[in-house]
Amino acid sequence: MNKFSIGVDLGGTNLRIAAVDEQGALVEKVTLDTKVSRGRDHVIGDMCDAIQRLSGKYGNSAPLMGIGIGVPGIIDMQTGLVRESPNLPDWVDYPARAAIEERLKTAVVLENDADVAALGEKWLGAAKDYADMAMLTLGTGVGGGLVLGGTIWRGANGMAGELGHTTVEPDGHPCGCGNRGCLEQYASATAVVRMAREAISKDGASALARAAQSDPEFSAKSIYHLAMQGDEDARRIFRYMGRCLGIVLSTMVNSLNLPIYVIGGGVSSAWEAFSPAIFEELRRRALVYAATAPADPLAVREGASAHVKAGPGHKTIITRAVLGSDAGLYGAARLSMIAKYDREI
Amino acid sequence: MNKFSIGVDLGGTNLRIAAVDEQGALVEKVTLDTKVSRGRDHVIGDMCDAIQRLSGKYGNSAPLMGIGIGVPGIIDMQTGLVRESPNLPDWVDYPARAAIEERLKTAVVLENDADVAALGEKWLGAAKDYADMAMLTLGTGVGGGLVLGGTIWRGANGMAGELGHTTVEPDGHPCGCGNRGCLEQYASATAVVRMAREAISKDGASALARAAQSDPEFSAKSIYHLAMQGDEDARRIFRYMGRCLGIVLSTMVNSLNLPIYVIGGGVSSAWEAFSPAIFEELRRRALVYAATAPADPLAVREGASAHVKAGPGHKTIITRAVLGSDAGLYGAARLSMIAKYDREI
Repeated sequence: MNKFSIGVDLGGTNLRIAAVDEQGALVEKVTLDTKVSRGRDHVIGDMCDAIQRLSGKYGNSAPLMGIGIGVPGIIDMQTGLVRESPNLPDWVDYPARAAIEERLKTAVVLENDADVAALGEKWLGAAKDYADMAMLTLGTGVGGGLVLGGTIWRGANGMAGELGHTTVEPDGHPCGCGNRGCLEQYASATAVVRMAREAISKDGASALARAAQSDPEFSAKSIYHLAMQGDEDARRIFRYMGRCLGIVLSTMVNSLNLPIYVIGGGVSSAWEAFSPAIFEELRRRALVYAATAPADPLAVREGASAHVKAGPGHKTIITRAVLGSDAGLYGAARLSMIAKYDREI
Repeated sequence: MNKFSIGVDLGGTNLRIAAVDEQGALVEKVTLDTKVSRGRDHVIGDMCDAIQRLSGKYGNSAPLMGIGIGVPGIIDMQTGLVRESPNLPDWVDYPARAAIEERLKTAVVLENDADVAALGEKWLGAAKDYADMAMLTLGTGVGGGLVLGGTIWRGANGMAGELGHTTVEPDGHPCGCGNRGCLEQYASATAVVRMAREAISKDGASALARAAQSDPEFSAKSIYHLAMQGDEDARRIFRYMGRCLGIVLSTMVNSLNLPIYVIGGGVSSAWEAFSPAIFEELRRRALVYAATAPADPLAVREGASAHVKAGPGHKTIITRAVLGSDAGLYGAARLSMIAKYDREI
């Protein structure tokens, strides 16, 4: 085996640890439950045990390049503190990096989970071959990541990429961040369910109402299935979601003019239902998109984007992620291959 | 004298040409009328005469580093064609760079005017000492420029930085670009006058109505003076302008987390009237701003920003430009000091 590194995707539900070699081949993947209720020390213990097992198993035959960990929250890159994390409340203001390093006796890199997902798609996924890209991750919330010049764009305080909190409707639905009308309120799984419940109580929306009553796990997925069966109320929800994504992407295309924008996360499975509205908005709203749109944007399918090189006459690509839930794992493994450690422990 | 370069600020009204040395000292500035009505060849002739006079006068005693030209429009960096230019209609799709180079027998750099203004403020103005910054130029329209890693961020097609066409109100006022509710429709001189006329016809707005009737040049400036005299209708217009700027800046702070954002252009003279609303929106809407705001953002005055270094614990600075109408001239001169020419003529 070549040189390898270990990537960790620490989610609120799953804790996944993988050894990945320098070419991006998955050597071994471990999937555990994140036992959030047993506290951060327990989770860190599980994580470090798996890391040590993988580094012990493969570290004799090949050099370990480093360990990268994607964390669902805002990380202070300087201190390694988790500054905000709705899904891991007891990690906030806790020196997670120091605790992990003390157990492992080696340096690790912590990074926001949406940022590592972007890095994964840039390395091996839909944005392969592009130095610059943006990714929106549509899950319970909406995460964002920017890769500029081949590396994660962190900004002055390491807080860049909060694309889910772009204002779409200045007087819109209140968001947990304190703002109103954030993209997250219209393009997350939570938002799809909320919009369905609003449609039920406001317009009746009979098929949605039946599904909500009979399905104990009335979810974005069930609403998507109704949309695919042609239910107009369900379709309207995804069109609105596409409209909001289109507004945000218009702003990004006009301001950054990146070659490619990737949409991932669980809710991106509903691509067919929401993506036509994205392109409609983009054509209408973004002068830079109008000047650079491919003839048939929907025909640019998964992976196809990798064959369209950046450069003069480049067409703006907006496409689905291709690595699915592994994007973050690959991106986390990639961290230690590209990061310059400016500190020793 | 040190090495020097020549910068040109080609505006719809003024054509300014300057020799600037490597340290940023203005050696000589020539100001002409842009004789748009006499056609592009005439304007190019005037421009080239002045460039040749300056390069002849100073080129014997010091090496000329190059010539940079800020143009109000979208430039195709590869071909040197002007792609769009509301103020110079007969320049569109004209190979302006080739025509200028043929006259001068030397290479020149063409760049969007808002981008060169950003570069000027980054080199010698409010964002001095920062490698990363954004600038909004509030004039007849709203221009934008991004400097990342010390150089202009052009994007995949050279069209980045169209910050004036960020959607603020998805169903808002129609914009010339085809979108609705662009920032330009709420934060330009044109927008201020339009909003005043709307207030007159909708609410009466007596002081504004009197001014509009008696003042043949009823302008953003006259409305600003009314606001400063306490007229509530005029004040409301600038508060709304600040709100819209705050919404766009919130998105930029959340997504890019830059250390500094600079607001320039003629309408930025009304800073006192619109800036409080900017900071109000930012605190409410941008979680990244809430985490990085200075204690008293309005106390960060012109030039003061230069003393706040980037780094951990950095505070997000939003401040006025300091170079006034010379920002573009300095930025244009700077172009040939930092640009790598990848072509010969």
